[in-house]
Amino acid sequence: MTSKSYVVQMNANGVIDSTVVNGADLTDKGARGNGFHQVSVNKGKYPAKVKSRRQRWDVRPSEMANKTCNPIRDIVDGMKLTPNPEKAMIALSIGDPTVFGNLPTDACVLKALKDAVESARYNGYAPSIGYQKSREAVANFYNSSLAPLEAKDVVLTSGCSQAIELCISVLSNPGDNILIPCPGFSLYKTIALSIGVQVKLYNLLPERSWEVDLEHLESLVDEQTTCLVLTNPSNPCGSVFSKEHLEGILKVASKHCLPILADEIYGDMVFPGCTYTSLATLSSDVPILSCGGLAKRWLVPGWRMGWILIHDRRDVFGSEIRKGLVKLTQLILGACTLVQGALESILQNTPQHFYDSTTSFLKANAEICFKELSTVPGLTPIMPSGAMYFMVGIDIDHFPGMKNDVEFTERLVTEQSVFCLPTSAFDYPNFFRIVVTVPEKLMVEACVRIRLFCQQHYLPHRADSSELDQ
Amino acid sequence: MTSKSYVVQMNANGVIDSTVVNGADLTDKGARGNGFHQVSVNKGKYPAKVKSRRQRWDVRPSEMANKTCNPIRDIVDGMKLTPNPEKAMIALSIGDPTVFGNLPTDACVLKALKDAVESARYNGYAPSIGYQKSREAVANFYNSSLAPLEAKDVVLTSGCSQAIELCISVLSNPGDNILIPCPGFSLYKTIALSIGVQVKLYNLLPERSWEVDLEHLESLVDEQTTCLVLTNPSNPCGSVFSKEHLEGILKVASKHCLPILADEIYGDMVFPGCTYTSLATLSSDVPILSCGGLAKRWLVPGWRMGWILIHDRRDVFGSEIRKGLVKLTQLILGACTLVQGALESILQNTPQHFYDSTTSFLKANAEICFKELSTVPGLTPIMPSGAMYFMVGIDIDHFPGMKNDVEFTERLVTEQSVFCLPTSAFDYPNFFRIVVTVPEKLMVEACVRIRLFCQQHYLPHRADSSELDQ
Repeated sequence: MTSKSYVVQMNANGVIDSTVVNGADLTDKGARGNGFHQVSVNKGKYPAKVKSRRQRWDVRPSEMANKTCNPIRDIVDGMKLTPNPEKAMIALSIGDPTVFGNLPTDACVLKALKDAVESARYNGYAPSIGYQKSREAVANFYNSSLAPLEAKDVVLTSGCSQAIELCISVLSNPGDNILIPCPGFSLYKTIALSIGVQVKLYNLLPERSWEVDLEHLESLVDEQTTCLVLTNPSNPCGSVFSKEHLEGILKVASKHCLPILADEIYGDMVFPGCTYTSLATLSSDVPILSCGGLAKRWLVPGWRMGWILIHDRRDVFGSEIRKGLVKLTQLILGACTLVQGALESILQNTPQHFYDSTTSFLKANAEICFKELSTVPGLTPIMPSGAMYFMVGIDIDHFPGMKNDVEFTERLVTEQSVFCLPTSAFDYPNFFRIVVTVPEKLMVEACVRIRLFCQQHYLPHRADSSELDQ
Repeated sequence: MTSKSYVVQMNANGVIDSTVVNGADLTDKGARGNGFHQVSVNKGKYPAKVKSRRQRWDVRPSEMANKTCNPIRDIVDGMKLTPNPEKAMIALSIGDPTVFGNLPTDACVLKALKDAVESARYNGYAPSIGYQKSREAVANFYNSSLAPLEAKDVVLTSGCSQAIELCISVLSNPGDNILIPCPGFSLYKTIALSIGVQVKLYNLLPERSWEVDLEHLESLVDEQTTCLVLTNPSNPCGSVFSKEHLEGILKVASKHCLPILADEIYGDMVFPGCTYTSLATLSSDVPILSCGGLAKRWLVPGWRMGWILIHDRRDVFGSEIRKGLVKLTQLILGACTLVQGALESILQNTPQHFYDSTTSFLKANAEICFKELSTVPGLTPIMPSGAMYFMVGIDIDHFPGMKNDVEFTERLVTEQSVFCLPTSAFDYPNFFRIVVTVPEKLMVEACVRIRLFCQQHYLPHRADSSELDQ
């Protein structure tokens, strides 16, 4: 967006002649102004001109502010959430594993932070892309022969959210578009729309464990598509893509010369028995910006410690994209230095059994849900393979009086004090998402109440008036 | 910035007719594309169209990335900084008080952080504007009868940098302009230009202790000016405005209905004997967004803990600007929760003597510099009253072979291993800025070397050839 240029025509009295410039008639009082766009010191006499003067206060929020929305909040704020006073509320809606206290981070993670504080070495400014040593630690942790990484390939960020923001911002201009999954994490859309970038939603197929509809994906690519956003493992689906499927996605990206933003914040958080493959290990030519962080796997989302891993085997990005990322980090200077200082210790010392016990726990909860909800009338649970989420389809036509997932979940709160997130919030109606991070007994109790609710409301035949009249 | 609209004309073969849309001839192969801007799920048959296909990889950084510059880095990176091997380097350039270890934060600040880690209560997501309790703590700390504050008036941010970024972003659209001081902290320009907002620089007057040239300031206001940015106490000048001067500034803002972004990150960091007045306590109608944080006064800039204090006595902002700020915080979710969790304790428990000993130390260093540099030929030091900086004017015409502050400071490194920041980096040539945070003996040594340097290079008469031929 370039700045406007005004040509101000002055007569001897300092009055502006009527001159139309850029479509604006400058005799129009509203347009009168000096319009100088100075970026240098203006010493000396100031040009005589008609002073612009607002007559009254009129401060409006910017277009960017107006365009920055939170679909989840927008939907939830519009719901009437008054739980049944006779039943304690069970919130299965919040993607925050710390809420119930049953999933604490490992002791060594806390120790690493305390040591960093104690050392008094991490109080000053870090480089905007993060401490060299911390970037090395992340590179070492994720480095593999199939997808080598050095410190120079790592940018530390204030949470994975900022990692995603930087990647979308470095690749896209207003008017460009990015491809995002549907159902999918709403932040991609929030960030894109706030900076004037469009989103195109590609379908995931529930009947294929939420795999990408590759044909649909490919049909969306156009000249202004700047990147493909992939979430694996998935929020909200909890699905984990097979190696073969990832290769299929890479084939589309390669064919259309499309970089990939791989949101791998749940990377390695897969259930025992399932396999996670990082996208970069499979890519021979497609550059991958892998976004991650401590939030989920280490169970500390509030610490705001994220990273971008730049995988670019064929040097498609050259130096320009990398420089672009560095420049963008200069706006707000990245992550808290204390957490950066603790990073090496966290990555090196967190024991494998911590990761394993987390995923075992999540799997056990998911299995409880799947087993129970599979036999609940009107619901179709889809078993996840990782992350923290579980998608359940609603046969909405069989629930008279509830026309969509929003009404269904609202009513479920009112009657059963169980709050599941309606996936309209993820642009995917008539499902709900639950989290599988809650204590087991709450998971069990929630399933009991959901069953009760559905039994009370489900009508086997379609609830149209012709049937009811029979 | 609105997205472009394509009208794609298809004939029966799916071929695009030549149609000029928005100035682009669609028969041009480069423009061919589907141009659909979908934001909804596209199930079913996909429209037959000419598939756009990039033939080759061509990934370019965005305009935003290109427009995001760091003037300090740009200048410093262009300098040849090879210190004199016989003298240990003394860096007086970095605005980071922790560099030499002589200005540690208070023990209670570290304790507060450790307690927050230990509690395990601050690991989950906070609200995007910050924990309620932490916002209350900040409100209580800054609340006064002249400028009352409640939690609802506080937004917590990832450093004061993000506070500034949010304020500029909420008030300004591309093509608007903001007024920033000259000399002034370069981040305002960095942020503004990155989002397509112009900057107009208003003069500060060195001969009046860097007070604002109010006439010049007023001459810059136009219809597209969205806010006035004020830095008090000042970086790079270290000046502190009197109550009367602040009232003069408010008068201009009031007259032109201009909100003020008051960068008060150095608020209260004034030398013993000097008085700091927060702008909001003086404003009867002008809304003030006061930006601050822990960085400087508590000596922990890396912790990225900032805040916006919304002072709006007359409710000029209404609810819209406040809502706009909240929306923008949803992009990356703010400050590290551990530091937020420690905030109440830090604000309540840091003893006054910690603040006092810091400012006494800074004053003592400033006095050393002023006393010494006042008698150095060719230099004009300007005594600060607060913050951490000191501006020194250079009679550049009297230093042959050095044509500006950049060359002067570069040569000073080469010969004397003292690095002072050339203030071209702050859009203000022929001064240099030093920091007064360094250990006293380094301050003294630096002044000795600066004196030596100037004595060796200063020519009392102007160094033009006519004189030299005499």
